[in-house]
Amino acid sequence: MSSQFVSPLSISKADLEEGSVFAPKFDDNGLITTVVTSFDTGEILMLAYMNEQSLQLTLETGIAHYWSRSRQRLWKKGETSGNLQTIMEMRTDCDQDALWIKVKVAGDGPTCHTERNSCFYRRVNFGSEPATLSIE
Amino acid sequence: MSSQFVSPLSISKADLEEGSVFAPKFDDNGLITTVVTSFDTGEILMLAYMNEQSLQLTLETGIAHYWSRSRQRLWKKGETSGNLQTIMEMRTDCDQDALWIKVKVAGDGPTCHTERNSCFYRRVNFGSEPATLSIE
Repeated sequence: MSSQFVSPLSISKADLEEGSVFAPKFDDNGLITTVVTSFDTGEILMLAYMNEQSLQLTLETGIAHYWSRSRQRLWKKGETSGNLQTIMEMRTDCDQDALWIKVKVAGDGPTCHTERNSCFYRRVNFGSEPATLSIE
Repeated sequence: MSSQFVSPLSISKADLEEGSVFAPKFDDNGLITTVVTSFDTGEILMLAYMNEQSLQLTLETGIAHYWSRSRQRLWKKGETSGNLQTIMEMRTDCDQDALWIKVKVAGDGPTCHTERNSCFYRRVNFGSEPATLSIE
């Protein structure tokens, strides 16, 4: 599969949940969801997806690589803007089907294509119908 | 579609990214990824998925409802344990294909089925091959 991780099918449920073997579970599209937070502020910056190749590259280089679902290609975040994301910490969850990375963004540039630090710049207001959004 | 939100196909890209209309984009499986953090500590507790029905119920009740991919059914988190999640804040991202909810957990019970507060209890150690996990 990869030199960095194994298939989750090759280990027991107990090992998957409590063990030291990294066995990330990719979904039917070959992707694993990745939450990206700022190492400095803890803020959630974005949600992204990695395939096997991009996770392998991320682990080899320490720089975040994703799979762009919209462009259907490998995506080294910041490859054009220069705002590369250096992984300070990576975590995985109980069943190893999600990743959480804490990153430092080179140049302190915006993460979002709308030029904001975080993609989550809108609040969902609910309680009366329909729900609405506000930028805050 | 729902009384709480509209289809993203019904609004422009500008409105999708900057507007006040809530138009969540569900994926090919009818799901939207949801990051769940603790309102009190900011810690990422879990990653979950909502379908149209569970998002509608979440907005109507203020209590988190998900779609369980493993059990293929609506899942009111805490329905058996009593550790219901009350939504203190909901956010969405630039293209409205992800949600971030900040919750208070009733009874301060564990979020993870392994009895831990967070599902992300393992760190991925990389830099030498293969990557390994440690509980920390």
